[in-house]
Amino acid sequence: MAETDRFYVLVTNDDGPFSPGLWLLYDSIEELADVEIVVPETPKSASGLGITLHKPLRVSRIEIGGKQITTINGTPSDIVYVATSLKRRSFDLVVSGVNIGDNTSIQVILSSGTIGAAIQAALLGLPAIAFSAEVRDPTQLEEPDMRYMIMSFAKKIVRRVLSKGLPRGVDILNVNFPSIPTSEVEVAAPAIRRFENKLVKRKDPRGLEYYWLYGLPVSPEEGTDVHSLLVKKRITITPISLRSLLNVRELIDTVRHELLEN
Amino acid sequence: MAETDRFYVLVTNDDGPFSPGLWLLYDSIEELADVEIVVPETPKSASGLGITLHKPLRVSRIEIGGKQITTINGTPSDIVYVATSLKRRSFDLVVSGVNIGDNTSIQVILSSGTIGAAIQAALLGLPAIAFSAEVRDPTQLEEPDMRYMIMSFAKKIVRRVLSKGLPRGVDILNVNFPSIPTSEVEVAAPAIRRFENKLVKRKDPRGLEYYWLYGLPVSPEEGTDVHSLLVKKRITITPISLRSLLNVRELIDTVRHELLEN
Repeated sequence: MAETDRFYVLVTNDDGPFSPGLWLLYDSIEELADVEIVVPETPKSASGLGITLHKPLRVSRIEIGGKQITTINGTPSDIVYVATSLKRRSFDLVVSGVNIGDNTSIQVILSSGTIGAAIQAALLGLPAIAFSAEVRDPTQLEEPDMRYMIMSFAKKIVRRVLSKGLPRGVDILNVNFPSIPTSEVEVAAPAIRRFENKLVKRKDPRGLEYYWLYGLPVSPEEGTDVHSLLVKKRITITPISLRSLLNVRELIDTVRHELLEN
Repeated sequence: MAETDRFYVLVTNDDGPFSPGLWLLYDSIEELADVEIVVPETPKSASGLGITLHKPLRVSRIEIGGKQITTINGTPSDIVYVATSLKRRSFDLVVSGVNIGDNTSIQVILSSGTIGAAIQAALLGLPAIAFSAEVRDPTQLEEPDMRYMIMSFAKKIVRRVLSKGLPRGVDILNVNFPSIPTSEVEVAAPAIRRFENKLVKRKDPRGLEYYWLYGLPVSPEEGTDVHSLLVKKRITITPISLRSLLNVRELIDTVRHELLEN
């Protein structure tokens, strides 16, 4: 196959260049496509779909483990725009991850930098897959069984999407790996919430108050992505359709009727 | 009416305490409810649903024009969580804005701090309304006709939602005011995109390259919120349903069939 006939895939994440999740993804798919790695300089968890308009973006090339990669002092969303602007060929697929920590529920999906990158890709009409793992510690990704689960499934799903495209009506596949290696897969709808957000007050050494925001897991509802991942411990796929946000014909009539005509 | 029987409304924005849009909203609704103003210290445009997990949040009380308000060194999403955690009563409604610049299309809706706050409120089960105006310059909001359009419509819609709730199936009302004062209102579905994101390369005084990311408007498609606002110059309401993201039963079957069974 000629060089230019090969698929061309953008790999990004929100954890930066030194996340083992990034390299797992790269190792999974490098035989399937030419891979461009473009990531934030520093971790950007929970950056959502934020875009950097107020400050200049710096683009650097660095080499890690023999592979040239690009880092940007921006968010995962920035990266999709910068990478697609700077590249000569258009990407066949954008993959994001593997995130340290799962990304399940609408609450987390819409706040996640990992999925933010995938949503920005989808807005550009590019197929996108986000990968995350229910781990707290990056080293958990390097355990042989975990590595095997992630690499074999990522390879399978990327190969499928490269050759046949995303399933009809789907804009983004959001894939989460459980903390215990498995081969069982479930496709599930997103829960609304994953966390109850909490606030804790502290005092700094000067006696001034400050707060930390953190999340306590809510008890997972059966049939949701959160339940499939955390309770059933399955590889969990949440299909995301941006187009579903467009199917508001009925809502429009309701709003017209209830809000404007009365 | 006893003090505690009054409605209790959180007003926030992504432009900070000195945006005239904030005060327009406050002036519109203060006679309808007890109003708590909690805003980011500094402008946080395009912060999306980003949440601040990595750094401490500082909460300050300041007085502007005789009104005590709270500022937080965080995103609009942070503010919803901090404000709901610190308050004794629960809010009957969260309103966000009036943003300097419109927030139309899925692309902008999901990246907007103004709407990010409304989405976080909706995830907490609180009714939410986001207000934005198609202006570039904050002073445009202070022109008498503009002020009249915004105040009278904001008051009408807030009164309606406080007394009867949001229309069935709607989680967030996204209201955009056109650059030319009008009384005409249209309810529309979101366009997919509002901007084509562009990148421009510059050199700093030391000769090092950097980039600015910016957006060029795409030509608005009829029937969308972007068209209603920018071309027809109507007050435009985009209803948003987080629940529509849950209606993926059909997608789930497709993914199962196309991705896993073959």
